[in-house]
Amino acid sequence: MLDLAIIGGGPAGLVAGLYATRGGLKNVVMYEPGMPGGQITQSSEIENYPGQLEVISGLDLMEKWPKQAQQFGLKHEMKEVISVTKKADIFTLKLSDKSEVEALSVIVATGSVPRRAHFPGEDEFFGRGISTCATCDGFFYKEKEVAMIGGGDTALEEALYMANVASKVYLIHRRDTFRGSPTTVEKVMNNKKIEVVLNAKPKEVFGDKMGVTGLILDTPEGERVLDVPGVFLFVGRDVKNDMLKDAEENFICDVNESGEVIVDLKMHTSLEGLFAAGDIRIESAKQVVCAAADGSVAALEALLYVEVKKG
Amino acid sequence: MLDLAIIGGGPAGLVAGLYATRGGLKNVVMYEPGMPGGQITQSSEIENYPGQLEVISGLDLMEKWPKQAQQFGLKHEMKEVISVTKKADIFTLKLSDKSEVEALSVIVATGSVPRRAHFPGEDEFFGRGISTCATCDGFFYKEKEVAMIGGGDTALEEALYMANVASKVYLIHRRDTFRGSPTTVEKVMNNKKIEVVLNAKPKEVFGDKMGVTGLILDTPEGERVLDVPGVFLFVGRDVKNDMLKDAEENFICDVNESGEVIVDLKMHTSLEGLFAAGDIRIESAKQVVCAAADGSVAALEALLYVEVKKG
Repeated sequence: MLDLAIIGGGPAGLVAGLYATRGGLKNVVMYEPGMPGGQITQSSEIENYPGQLEVISGLDLMEKWPKQAQQFGLKHEMKEVISVTKKADIFTLKLSDKSEVEALSVIVATGSVPRRAHFPGEDEFFGRGISTCATCDGFFYKEKEVAMIGGGDTALEEALYMANVASKVYLIHRRDTFRGSPTTVEKVMNNKKIEVVLNAKPKEVFGDKMGVTGLILDTPEGERVLDVPGVFLFVGRDVKNDMLKDAEENFICDVNESGEVIVDLKMHTSLEGLFAAGDIRIESAKQVVCAAADGSVAALEALLYVEVKKG
Repeated sequence: MLDLAIIGGGPAGLVAGLYATRGGLKNVVMYEPGMPGGQITQSSEIENYPGQLEVISGLDLMEKWPKQAQQFGLKHEMKEVISVTKKADIFTLKLSDKSEVEALSVIVATGSVPRRAHFPGEDEFFGRGISTCATCDGFFYKEKEVAMIGGGDTALEEALYMANVASKVYLIHRRDTFRGSPTTVEKVMNNKKIEVVLNAKPKEVFGDKMGVTGLILDTPEGERVLDVPGVFLFVGRDVKNDMLKDAEENFICDVNESGEVIVDLKMHTSLEGLFAAGDIRIESAKQVVCAAADGSVAALEALLYVEVKKG
């Protein structure tokens, strides 16, 4: 029986493991089928992790995190968690190798993955001019022009963010109206730095060895070329919550309409003993430092919870 | 007119400054009468800041943080903020030098200070065997005996935390009953590793060059000596919220019974345009990484807010 099972090996899962083991939990396993570190390891430049003064790659930023947690006893198993169920205070996790493991508490930290828009050049230039996070990468386009693709609240809010940083923002949406909340739409429409391009789709992104140099759009008036060094995609996220669904496809804890796990300030979910941390939870800022903080909070709460259940 | 005024220069304030300036806010000033870095700079050993593998002093941990924010334009003024008022969307801050400054948005990140218990040896050994944070320093007493002083929920929860780490916990309280919630009291009373010592007060802590070696208690049965290398104090915290009181001593935003600022997951307070971050807010875990995350979230929200107000 594990004291704590952690699902996901990004910043949230790793810090949950650090705090849980350092806090004295004895059997703590982090289930992560890939290498620990999370999506951030795909980023080439990071300059906003607190205390990290020099620009650093995501891979380098995360290098020490697994070691830090493992020195206190965190174990890592390269298995995927297929399902989580709870009966009489005991969680049962089904794993990708068909085995099962029991745990007194669970922290889910599997995150969410930004969707791709699927147009030529997208994969080639991803991470070299194509980004899914303005807060992370926007500053690299200070006083430059950027194109942003999407029509929901995230796209609108990220466009407003970029309007503060870039010299001009093209906001491209395939429909004739935005799906975002009316007040946010109004802010975007009134912002002089944002040019809204409706009924338009990305056709191809092009560039050179250094990265993106432009984007071709399909519009009702024909092709339009934007000479931009940066393209941001906000076409939705896939929340990695499949393991939280039971046999009837019902979630074992409360989630919002996007499938994000509902938590309070202490990372408690609606199911006692189950905690959530990082991008899988509602209102996540999608920042490494925020996922890390969530992990520490979830672990401290799991510690208290397990202490009681053990008696 | 400032885009954003940040009150307090600890991890929360510094990261708020980093994210706000990197996000394009133009006039961002952090008001901190002392050196930036916060209370953590008084800690001699930290090993749980994510990504920091080696044990490091608080002063060393925080060394790069002000530089990181200042390179994006954060200004630091060594002044205290005496009061904050808001009229017609404009905040006015009164400063310790009697000057005033106006701001479109405010992040308050002044934290809270653990109270001292005031007994001989306390000041001498503070940070060398006397601590106010089990989550931070508990691991340094792994499999050792510690004394913990206090009778509220924090003392009880920290005692439960330490019971997982230490070989034995003496929980010392000056009254004959605990003030904490009944369920937490029950957990403590049932924990075999915790010896509750009621009606007792610390009389003196003693030690040598290396740190604390013991604690003398005043009990109804006379003096009692505990040979412990660690003493934890949980006798309350002073929330640094004076600047949030108006002339009639009413708070300008909602606070809880301890004076901590009530926030949601996005660090919004009840007053539009005012955000809180770090130990001053409710449910804070009192960890550097959590304060840092709060600062980033508060800044991203302030950015959106200012963007609208500027039109």
